[in-house]
Amino acid sequence: MDIFKEIRPLKAFLESSKRDSDSIGFVPTMGALHQGHLSLIQASKRENAKTICSIYINPTQFNNPDDLAKYPKTLARDIELLTDVGCDVLFCPENKEMYSVEPRLKFDFGSLERVLEGKYRPGHFSGVALVISKLFHIVSPNKAYFGQKDFQQFKIIEQLVEELKFDVSLRCMPIERESDGLAMSSRNTRLSAEQKEKATTLYKCLLLASNLIKDGHTMDSIRKKIESIFLKVDGIKLEYFELANTTNLMSLKYVADKSSTAILLIAGYVGEVRLIDNLLLTDEN
Amino acid sequence: MDIFKEIRPLKAFLESSKRDSDSIGFVPTMGALHQGHLSLIQASKRENAKTICSIYINPTQFNNPDDLAKYPKTLARDIELLTDVGCDVLFCPENKEMYSVEPRLKFDFGSLERVLEGKYRPGHFSGVALVISKLFHIVSPNKAYFGQKDFQQFKIIEQLVEELKFDVSLRCMPIERESDGLAMSSRNTRLSAEQKEKATTLYKCLLLASNLIKDGHTMDSIRKKIESIFLKVDGIKLEYFELANTTNLMSLKYVADKSSTAILLIAGYVGEVRLIDNLLLTDEN
Repeated sequence: MDIFKEIRPLKAFLESSKRDSDSIGFVPTMGALHQGHLSLIQASKRENAKTICSIYINPTQFNNPDDLAKYPKTLARDIELLTDVGCDVLFCPENKEMYSVEPRLKFDFGSLERVLEGKYRPGHFSGVALVISKLFHIVSPNKAYFGQKDFQQFKIIEQLVEELKFDVSLRCMPIERESDGLAMSSRNTRLSAEQKEKATTLYKCLLLASNLIKDGHTMDSIRKKIESIFLKVDGIKLEYFELANTTNLMSLKYVADKSSTAILLIAGYVGEVRLIDNLLLTDEN
Repeated sequence: MDIFKEIRPLKAFLESSKRDSDSIGFVPTMGALHQGHLSLIQASKRENAKTICSIYINPTQFNNPDDLAKYPKTLARDIELLTDVGCDVLFCPENKEMYSVEPRLKFDFGSLERVLEGKYRPGHFSGVALVISKLFHIVSPNKAYFGQKDFQQFKIIEQLVEELKFDVSLRCMPIERESDGLAMSSRNTRLSAEQKEKATTLYKCLLLASNLIKDGHTMDSIRKKIESIFLKVDGIKLEYFELANTTNLMSLKYVADKSSTAILLIAGYVGEVRLIDNLLLTDEN
């Protein structure tokens, strides 16, 4: 695997691939890689001649300085995992390379960032859009791969690409879960064994709600049920639990029509660690 | 000259140039072309294998609907002028091609858009950044050419390119003027002969202020002088008159140091038509 820390040599290296019309698949990450990330690399390898992964903990997307300071860093192990899975190129820049000028530009995505993560993490999606714009301009990928776990992030990047007419296809890949259902997340490494057990509450609530929706319950009654479950477990706290339209993430009270897609989204704290999860409501679940 | 109204065939056409490693020069315009625009085309032709001009009146950068409705449209003549000057490609899309989804994304450039045009034309630079981002992604130019008359616009695009790491070099070309000093502008076609005469007041004020600055006067006293000149001419109105640092456009009271560059900027109305002009303060003037 070729490893680059600087933009200029990476671009020079990628130029030759572009002259050969090789398609480039791109997986932007913040490192602390797990099977969720590796499944994105694998998807990219299936669909592209070259796969590039970036590892960069982007400071402008952290609204909470403590979360930034404690974000797990496991670069040596990440490099091993990427090599094993056959990733072609790793780009792991430092802050001064990615922010050579002080960041002043901000994005506003309108209604899509007023809800869910956008509501609870002010400025988060502006920082995401900033770093993704930079990375897309550096890498010029044909396809870019994101995890469904950050579903709202995917919708934001979709809006960014559509509105600014970036020449890249976006892929949203399914959530990878531990055997107990916990959605894989780099932040899980900050949890104790006991906390990990408690963290499965998020997914259990998604499954329960999915069943209650099928039985005709409305979100008002389901949310009360979920809130009471969270109150019964020590050391966990619900931040939001919503049913939303997958097109624009506007909140729904119930699934009006089987043919329209809806998604259940949840965020909560386990100790000091903030976790998110979601579940697409299709005919299968 | 090859003319494209749609993105897809334009991109297919440009792909072959890119494979040949031909450099592409790009001149984005809103049409109603004059010698100012043509000088940009000529500069691009000197420095690139292929030169592309776009003509698109971008609705999202007009804060005043009347200004948008009355913006001059002279496409047949523009095509003649571009052919005569040897432009290779014209891209003249319609709104539905440029805004295939409803615009919701907004940019905020911080302090650079709180002053001058940004202050008097709320939302203007967000619209400019939106359309320039789209056009840069469609054309993928190596170099892009802009006129110094829209100096703050150039600074905004410079910030956009730096912060988002667009892979394009920007060129700012000198203002072209009529023999009486009036800065060339598409909006000049909306002026009567008498109004054109009055419009020269803008440039005359810039020259006068430049001399007064050399004689050691401060901006407070100079601005009073300029205001009194505008009050003496019927049918014209001063909007702003500022001395600014060319780096960040922050207002200056005087030119502190000969080695730092400063710029005088003016905006005013002649009848209903809003005009701008500026003058870089160098050792020569």
